Amino acid sequence: MHDLIRVIVLGTGQMGSRIARLVLEKPALVLAGACAKRSDREGVDIGRVIGLDSDLGLPVYTDLTAAIEIVRPHVAIQANCSTLAETKQPIAKLLQSGVHVISIAEEMSYPSATSPQLAEEIRRIAVSRGVAVVGTGINPGFMLDLLIIVLTGVCTDIQSITGTRVNDLSFYGPSVLKRQGVGLPPEEFREGLAKGTVVGHVGFPQSIHMIAGAIGWEIERIEEHREPIISTVRRKTPFATVEPGCCAGCLHSAVAYRRGAPVIKLIHPQQIRPHLEGVETGDTLEIKGTPDIRISGSPEVPGGIATAALAVNMIPRVLSAPPGLHSMADLPVPVAMLGGDRELVPQTRQEHRRG
Amino acid sequence: MHDLIRVIVLGTGQMGSRIARLVLEKPALVLAGACAKRSDREGVDIGRVIGLDSDLGLPVYTDLTAAIEIVRPHVAIQANCSTLAETKQPIAKLLQSGVHVISIAEEMSYPSATSPQLAEEIRRIAVSRGVAVVGTGINPGFMLDLLIIVLTGVCTDIQSITGTRVNDLSFYGPSVLKRQGVGLPPEEFREGLAKGTVVGHVGFPQSIHMIAGAIGWEIERIEEHREPIISTVRRKTPFATVEPGCCAGCLHSAVAYRRGAPVIKLIHPQQIRPHLEGVETGDTLEIKGTPDIRISGSPEVPGGIATAALAVNMIPRVLSAPPGLHSMADLPVPVAMLGGDRELVPQTRQEHRRG
Repeated sequence: MHDLIRVIVLGTGQMGSRIARLVLEKPALVLAGACAKRSDREGVDIGRVIGLDSDLGLPVYTDLTAAIEIVRPHVAIQANCSTLAETKQPIAKLLQSGVHVISIAEEMSYPSATSPQLAEEIRRIAVSRGVAVVGTGINPGFMLDLLIIVLTGVCTDIQSITGTRVNDLSFYGPSVLKRQGVGLPPEEFREGLAKGTVVGHVGFPQSIHMIAGAIGWEIERIEEHREPIISTVRRKTPFATVEPGCCAGCLHSAVAYRRGAPVIKLIHPQQIRPHLEGVETGDTLEIKGTPDIRISGSPEVPGGIATAALAVNMIPRVLSAPPGLHSMADLPVPVAMLGGDRELVPQTRQEHRRG
Repeated sequence: MHDLIRVIVLGTGQMGSRIARLVLEKPALVLAGACAKRSDREGVDIGRVIGLDSDLGLPVYTDLTAAIEIVRPHVAIQANCSTLAETKQPIAKLLQSGVHVISIAEEMSYPSATSPQLAEEIRRIAVSRGVAVVGTGINPGFMLDLLIIVLTGVCTDIQSITGTRVNDLSFYGPSVLKRQGVGLPPEEFREGLAKGTVVGHVGFPQSIHMIAGAIGWEIERIEEHREPIISTVRRKTPFATVEPGCCAGCLHSAVAYRRGAPVIKLIHPQQIRPHLEGVETGDTLEIKGTPDIRISGSPEVPGGIATAALAVNMIPRVLSAPPGLHSMADLPVPVAMLGGDRELVPQTRQEHRRG
């Protein structure tokens, strides 16, 4: 019988809460703690913060060092940032404390894409402390990189790769919608792009370098394009209203060049209520090569739940990985962690209640 | 710079030849030798046997022990059998000689499905000699198992799994067509099933146990069904003719039960010229769970080329795997081995000519 795995979740927002709830469902895992950025959450019961009906008898911490010392986690799931700049300090602290790390920060899915130096620093700390760290998520981390890489496994030759993910942002909150320019008139969308308040998707360089690294292609440059998706109808969600003529979201794409030719193209239009204009959501992956491969699914794999699932499902993979910094392409594939037929659910629950 | 990897191919039939030709195309690999079952191929030049325009200056061997001693391979690709009974002796010999093994024998994709004892024996030899062995192929080995397992990675919960592969046998030779009952009147198809000359697909128990093993399900029983695909039109390939009322192939399916309920269903109709009756070929994978997942592609990923690609693309994965017996679900994902931008093609070719 294995020991239960003690998990700490960094972040108590929408994603952190979802992940913490999922950890509670898994017989092999114990939710050992949660760490928030917002100081008003210090000491509040985790159950209340993550949207449960009852308290868990465990306080939220806001100081990571204290949290690590008190809850002694085996693994941390980082769910409260996007950029390497934000992730760096907490990840270094966790690794130095001997805690494995799974991050859903987009830039952590392939950190050398934006900072080879920082990636090397993280790798070194992980190796020196004998722990592993990986970045994951639906995108980057799975749909437009890992799944493409898996499909290349049946190819003897590849000319080009195209991945398209058309998704629906209707269920996302204001911070996500703002980054996609949802609701803005076209001129304000363009101003937002210039100012950096409208960013579109974060993750193209990471996905491209993960694919290229796996199949051994040297990428010369990546061109990214961001266009407003201008709605002809009124679109509305609890968090945003788009008037006709305004932006329903952002059509963001990236093209990577090798030897002067475009070889990887990733296309990711994100908007609210796409169906109001007959836009079908979905994921489509295409490889031009020997043989040609094309698979697709509609609607798209839902991002929020899939990212939470990946973060939790990667726990066994990270615990058994060699020490160091990994990408999703380096480790055995993620597998649904179901609390299978050979696990002892009652004992686990007891352990969880003990805390 | 890495040393070139010396590969021996077991089998000089359609698949063995295809794999050998593919090895020759890869800058990181050297085709070190080939081993045939047919005694009349002893000493014949490999180039002639595998369908090249010119000789390679390397003889085909028929004695595996001699071949291993002379060509000193790092890794062997076994492409001349389907069952564990056939694979066992050559695999044991290769492993005992310190050679890594990749097998496309269907039963090797998950050997414990039919013989846990033999699987354990193979594992022990591999561990004792510090080498790794894995079974692969399009099916079993990829489409109806590994790819499904990867997709479970985005799920928090799974009720059931269905995989369907509708393929076209038109390009296959007589031995494959015979095993699918192609051309037989229905009553002879049924007799062939009873006698074991018509077998349909080999691989359902392997795929099912690979999936179940990955997600932790205990399978109570597997039911397999084989039905003739009766053609209403005349269908013809270079190797078979099907008259109306006769069998164009075999509709083979399998259902796996867990806790009394059907949880994994794999459906694999194989026939020649499916398009003559409007049958669209393709691969479809469905997970009922949280979230529901459904992806599909049409036409099907072509089996012959994909199996050869997987066998070759798994070479780096097997060389860096821990010693022992692996399944496709245990190792990092297969990746197209393209002879990328960082490899030295001319030097490799030279090395290949030296033999």
